[in-house]
Amino acid sequence: MSMADPVRIGLLGRGTVGAAFEQLIARRGEAVEAATGRRPEICGVLTRADGEFAEIVESSELVVELIGGTEPAREFVLEALRRGRPVVTANKQLLAQHGEELFEAARQAGVQLRFEAAVAGVIPIVRVIQESFGVTEIDKVFGIVNGTTNFILSEMAASGAPYGEALARAQELGYAEADPSDDVNGADAAAKMAILARLAFHTPVTLGDVPYEGIEKISPDDIAYAKELGLSLKLLGVAERREGGISVRVFPCFLYGGHPLAPVEGPFNAVMVEAPEITEVTMSGPGAGGMETASAVLGDVVSVLSGDAPVHEARQRLPLVSDVASSFYLHLAVADRPGVLAQIAQVLGDKEVSVKSVVQRGAGDDARLVMVVHECLESRFAEALKAIDALDVLRAPARAIRVIEEEFV
Amino acid sequence: MSMADPVRIGLLGRGTVGAAFEQLIARRGEAVEAATGRRPEICGVLTRADGEFAEIVESSELVVELIGGTEPAREFVLEALRRGRPVVTANKQLLAQHGEELFEAARQAGVQLRFEAAVAGVIPIVRVIQESFGVTEIDKVFGIVNGTTNFILSEMAASGAPYGEALARAQELGYAEADPSDDVNGADAAAKMAILARLAFHTPVTLGDVPYEGIEKISPDDIAYAKELGLSLKLLGVAERREGGISVRVFPCFLYGGHPLAPVEGPFNAVMVEAPEITEVTMSGPGAGGMETASAVLGDVVSVLSGDAPVHEARQRLPLVSDVASSFYLHLAVADRPGVLAQIAQVLGDKEVSVKSVVQRGAGDDARLVMVVHECLESRFAEALKAIDALDVLRAPARAIRVIEEEFV
Repeated sequence: MSMADPVRIGLLGRGTVGAAFEQLIARRGEAVEAATGRRPEICGVLTRADGEFAEIVESSELVVELIGGTEPAREFVLEALRRGRPVVTANKQLLAQHGEELFEAARQAGVQLRFEAAVAGVIPIVRVIQESFGVTEIDKVFGIVNGTTNFILSEMAASGAPYGEALARAQELGYAEADPSDDVNGADAAAKMAILARLAFHTPVTLGDVPYEGIEKISPDDIAYAKELGLSLKLLGVAERREGGISVRVFPCFLYGGHPLAPVEGPFNAVMVEAPEITEVTMSGPGAGGMETASAVLGDVVSVLSGDAPVHEARQRLPLVSDVASSFYLHLAVADRPGVLAQIAQVLGDKEVSVKSVVQRGAGDDARLVMVVHECLESRFAEALKAIDALDVLRAPARAIRVIEEEFV
Repeated sequence: MSMADPVRIGLLGRGTVGAAFEQLIARRGEAVEAATGRRPEICGVLTRADGEFAEIVESSELVVELIGGTEPAREFVLEALRRGRPVVTANKQLLAQHGEELFEAARQAGVQLRFEAAVAGVIPIVRVIQESFGVTEIDKVFGIVNGTTNFILSEMAASGAPYGEALARAQELGYAEADPSDDVNGADAAAKMAILARLAFHTPVTLGDVPYEGIEKISPDDIAYAKELGLSLKLLGVAERREGGISVRVFPCFLYGGHPLAPVEGPFNAVMVEAPEITEVTMSGPGAGGMETASAVLGDVVSVLSGDAPVHEARQRLPLVSDVASSFYLHLAVADRPGVLAQIAQVLGDKEVSVKSVVQRGAGDDARLVMVVHECLESRFAEALKAIDALDVLRAPARAIRVIEEEFV
């Protein structure tokens, strides 16, 4: 086959990203040819209404999967790999839930499976972790990997709007879907963190391994009180080494003002990678967008055509640690009478939970204690919380939100 | 040769980075073997006192150049390439001044020349521009690519210290060298921007093409007054498409508070890439450090061993545009009498330079006008500045510093 023959790409799915990818192929085809020696050409498109999967794969050299969801995407990707076609996908659910099976199929067929677009939009975090830091002993990968929730939290912080109102605004602007469940409950971020954890730690991690909490219960109060403590709220995905294994989780979390993720506002994503050898690298950019995602897909297509090395493999099996140490913000609606703070401090002290800062606000029926406690095992904090909830000075159940304690000044 | 044979690496130079690289090879050798199938081994080290270049190259499969400077590094790298050895280097001066010759030698020999560590420390900006955005029509690459000057400017802003004092503090802390000239005058940043511009625009750019200004003349006054306008000062490298070609420059520049580069403080680097398809991606991290730089070198070594595709080539020749449009901060020590502002506004108006914001400060011998003017051709602004300097109401020559006008709110 001469260098001048176009590369035939089979495209599965023509939603927002698929349509943008078609445009991009038309617009950047010449640049792809300049970089790889071959012009890309879409040889067939599979949509709900049109196209025959078997025919498209047969006629293609490379398959781009942009259907989303797990079935039939899983079946299609497996079949394409088995038939020796390299696959580029933007499908985070597929990778987070069936990654092992897909990577194994790619390995057996000796072809590439690339998925930059599955995590953090246009931020090339997959490539950077796999290639630039592929032999770095990464301690921690964490960040804001869901733009919808970051927009909602930014909106709540800026306007004091309650969650429902901020969500409605996100939907108006197209930053949230009609059914926003998977974004706001943390499931979307959890799928992305499963993928990043796998890459960072070279160990199998699936969606089921990642406990997640969303932002549905966040009150504008918490955001306002925390501001007085110098904190801003983000939905964080955190994958880190912990004594004896790794921990991968998604939860709303307060950050101090100087933290590199604190200024990330609106529908943006940002991911930090930490390792002793590199200290830390932070990458940020738009979290979504059809053209942005299509651009990440095209980057992967170019890598396949350039003959870049295939992805590195999982090479160990690290246990998941469930009880980790965290710092917490604690919001207590308390009776307005002397000795309340002492009583609560006593309970915390008994459980060896130590207080970092505290503010008292309001009076009478509006009296509140807002505090940040230093890092302690979450199980121990949960016990302290239970003991506090049992005190008769509490007017409502305590609210707790994690905090990253580092102050970066 | 069996997979188990180690990869023999010839190391040229054993300064801070070279010594850290040796440690890293010892510490991460197993991870390199897991990723590439081969364990790395340093087969010879060339220092001022020891080693024979010819012997080291002869016995090596891959050469790592960490000598720095242009000679004899240039000669060594050319010879290594000619003899078919892939080369990994951290040498920005070498690439910025002799890039074409080196890339041509690599092309002719059909081996790789990689240089992630030459720009922006541990931030993998070279890989991201070349690979992730290799076929993206990049509009602009810009950022903070010199950690020494960013530390000095942060220090001046935080403490109000004059330049000389902040520099001395940087030297104490090891962030500036005994002879800091190349850092503080902008030459170091210019070399890095020549490299980044070449990659982003696929066109030859050398150090001589990059006009640069440093920070030696920045006064704490400017930083303090600009703060009132919501501005913070950075030494920026900017490479961008402009009508008819590209512009690549280094200059101190004010940024508004919401700008993604504004929160980058201390000895950090940060680089932004802008393109319609990706909107923008920002990457930040430590700008230097022996281990950080060595880690970037090791990432390149792994890419060579993994068989990643060689670097993409310059494929066009874009003209360098010298007169570009910029926005400016303007500091004027003026006579304290009525009509002064009107007189200055008149001169600016005559030259079609339009004022964005202005503050008046002080009185009598300390009266000052501090303003920001909207983007205009720099040649036109220079004429306006000349006309203002000729006014008898000025007590000292006007001081002008560029501003990035975008307010990102």
